[in-house]
Amino acid sequence: MSTSPPDQETVQPDAAPASVDDYGLSDAQIERAHTAIEAGDITQLEEIAQSLHAADLADLIEELTTDERVILLDTLGGALDPEVLSYLVPAVRQDVIEHIGPKGLAAALSELESDDAVEIFEDLDDDFQQRILTQLPAGYRLVLEEGLAFPEASAGRLMQREVVVVPAGWTVGQTIDFMRSAQDMPDDFYDLFVVDPKHKCQGYVPLSRVLRAKRAAKISEVMETDVRPIPFTMDQEEVAYLFRQYGLVSTPVVDDSGRVIGMITVDDIVHVIDEEAEDDLMKLAGLGESDLYGRVLATAKSRATWLTVNLGTAVLASLVIGLFEATLSQAVALAVLMPIVASMGGNAGMQTLTVAVRALAMKDLSATNAVRFIGKECAVGAFNGVVFAVMTGAVAWLWFGRADIGVIIGLAMIVNMLIAGLSGTLVPLGLEKLKIDPAVASAVFLTTITDVVGFFAFLGLAALFIL
Amino acid sequence: MSTSPPDQETVQPDAAPASVDDYGLSDAQIERAHTAIEAGDITQLEEIAQSLHAADLADLIEELTTDERVILLDTLGGALDPEVLSYLVPAVRQDVIEHIGPKGLAAALSELESDDAVEIFEDLDDDFQQRILTQLPAGYRLVLEEGLAFPEASAGRLMQREVVVVPAGWTVGQTIDFMRSAQDMPDDFYDLFVVDPKHKCQGYVPLSRVLRAKRAAKISEVMETDVRPIPFTMDQEEVAYLFRQYGLVSTPVVDDSGRVIGMITVDDIVHVIDEEAEDDLMKLAGLGESDLYGRVLATAKSRATWLTVNLGTAVLASLVIGLFEATLSQAVALAVLMPIVASMGGNAGMQTLTVAVRALAMKDLSATNAVRFIGKECAVGAFNGVVFAVMTGAVAWLWFGRADIGVIIGLAMIVNMLIAGLSGTLVPLGLEKLKIDPAVASAVFLTTITDVVGFFAFLGLAALFIL
Repeated sequence: MSTSPPDQETVQPDAAPASVDDYGLSDAQIERAHTAIEAGDITQLEEIAQSLHAADLADLIEELTTDERVILLDTLGGALDPEVLSYLVPAVRQDVIEHIGPKGLAAALSELESDDAVEIFEDLDDDFQQRILTQLPAGYRLVLEEGLAFPEASAGRLMQREVVVVPAGWTVGQTIDFMRSAQDMPDDFYDLFVVDPKHKCQGYVPLSRVLRAKRAAKISEVMETDVRPIPFTMDQEEVAYLFRQYGLVSTPVVDDSGRVIGMITVDDIVHVIDEEAEDDLMKLAGLGESDLYGRVLATAKSRATWLTVNLGTAVLASLVIGLFEATLSQAVALAVLMPIVASMGGNAGMQTLTVAVRALAMKDLSATNAVRFIGKECAVGAFNGVVFAVMTGAVAWLWFGRADIGVIIGLAMIVNMLIAGLSGTLVPLGLEKLKIDPAVASAVFLTTITDVVGFFAFLGLAALFIL
Repeated sequence: MSTSPPDQETVQPDAAPASVDDYGLSDAQIERAHTAIEAGDITQLEEIAQSLHAADLADLIEELTTDERVILLDTLGGALDPEVLSYLVPAVRQDVIEHIGPKGLAAALSELESDDAVEIFEDLDDDFQQRILTQLPAGYRLVLEEGLAFPEASAGRLMQREVVVVPAGWTVGQTIDFMRSAQDMPDDFYDLFVVDPKHKCQGYVPLSRVLRAKRAAKISEVMETDVRPIPFTMDQEEVAYLFRQYGLVSTPVVDDSGRVIGMITVDDIVHVIDEEAEDDLMKLAGLGESDLYGRVLATAKSRATWLTVNLGTAVLASLVIGLFEATLSQAVALAVLMPIVASMGGNAGMQTLTVAVRALAMKDLSATNAVRFIGKECAVGAFNGVVFAVMTGAVAWLWFGRADIGVIIGLAMIVNMLIAGLSGTLVPLGLEKLKIDPAVASAVFLTTITDVVGFFAFLGLAALFIL
């Protein structure tokens, strides 16, 4: 399409990349890595590793088998970019850390920014942590120990200690000169935080504003005062909410007396948001966390917990059916039809539940609109209950030629879908009120309710009116 | 705890805020708004609205009833911050737009950055769009029309046209002087994009680096060359993947010939990530999108689609049961126990499916590791199948005192959980291959399979060996 000019300075190809596959780790690169490892071609392997961004190299390591991983790590040795550790999923990271040992890890950690180092460090067992601490310079050891002293999943754990603060009285020119000469600045930062003599946060200045202001302008004249300093104790989900709500790029973290002790940047928050979303998804399906990279036995074991609970509730539903053995033996049609009522209730309830769990996570559902939400969901349940009662009743009547069974299944359907709407809202709201994560426990409660109510309503009505 | 010094410049309270509830819209503020509207206290209402960040005001508008909304909007009139429109959920935004009319909306749009304006504009119906275009200045009209010409959910739609580009040959000093004097700069930006004379992207410079470099340094000396320009056609999910993978804060968007035509910033990506996660969650539960703010009838109708599909599959499962009416009438215990097999298979399958759908969305699962994943899931299914076969078999034996039913339910359990592992992987992978979103269609396929296999295996084995 376009011709390539003889311009040696152009670092980009002339045609724009077609898709995301032009970036990141390609299947061809993975294939080449497999081949190089198999052939023992160390030069080739080093070349591949060096051509990759740390995030892509982490992806490559995740793709390899355990044996291949060992070969790659041995090949790279000390040349392994410490950043790679931050990008690995926990299961694979543990493998890698076991391989490089406490000494190698200590060296790697000291090259990372404090938030990344703490994130890796906190997952290690106590013994390993101690062995690493002895390898670290005293100052860095303190940063790690302090980081771990903050509550888990808190702003304190998430923040980096490296932060740029300036006094309100400085001019823009003074500030720029300070930044040009200062050592130990963060790798990336987007805002300057303005502090008073007690190191308390008074405002912030986006870097773009610093660049555009005249050198003589005072920081106090160009700063924004609607800063939202985050206490180090704040939960990371609440921090994510603030970033999302106000479109923040970075924000200061403060101690009990309001002094700036660190900052959180949006790239950390992207990970929190991903984790949060994954958490809700996994928990609703009865999974502890995504176990894509876990081993078979560990995966089977972690999933068995939820399946055991489900077995319990399934047996409970069967006990309800067992109450009506006499009825069932008189009309086998009931046995054929009864799963329909339970299944429809379960699905309608899960729809409501999913909306509620997401809305609670996004802080869109609270005490002020809970009543309206419950009312609406009951109305939706009743409405769809009637619609599907008619459809199911007609199917049952046509199938078995019995109007009475059609009427009974229709009534049971209305009852169960109304209950599904009600419990799909009340269960998560109740759990939230009890400070239990609604994502983790709601689904099992809900399906138990809709199964029990579904079977009981259908078979109970049949026992009453048919026999 | 700490004493308050008589320092009038301190804008922050002395004690740090305790939690996220100290920011954002509080229940008390919502209460005050309700009261002010009821009492017709316009001054109070204006005061509340003006004290809120646009995002919080949007939340308040969402909390109000339709009648209350009208009163608030009438009170604010032209003083309504246009940013509020960007923060509203689509259902409520439509209400507000209908109220303020094409003229008011045209005025609001022209105050927004181009990406926000396009996002609001694209949701309007054709007629309304035309009426707004006639109200806009020609230049702005062009921006909107061009924005809409990009494919939906593409980088072109997501980007803002306002972007800062500089030639590689400039010095840092020249660049800063240019920024100080230039008009029409974006509100917020974090990187400068470096272009050649043909406006092609050669690299980028983070603002923090511009600030820290000497004035005499050349841009070409301080720029990073590992820039990843995004073609305007790239899907927003792929853009989000790049931001997440490489921790980007902003990135240039290029046209077919590689020229910079706009940029995407991380705050837009946070919304894409949220949407994406919500999408997967909602689709797995059979919801089009979160309908928290939808009306009863619209909500019931949109959910009925999935419920109708579910009714179809439930009837299919019932047809399978119907094949064994004779068997069932001989041993009612089978009717009591059969939901257990189906339910366990469905749950085990949904666990596998959820991991697969999430991994596909995060690009962690691809052709290269699919076989390993399928093998692992089958192994997990077989392992847990045996474990729960023993447990369920024992329960059935004890309950009905019949060892044969215990053995049969155990065998059916192993079969169904193995099939659950297999279909929990093959169904989403197959749909992905067919370019169908695995989140939307997988769950219904999967539960149909596990229901049908569960009932068929259990009742079929019973028919063979018991009768």
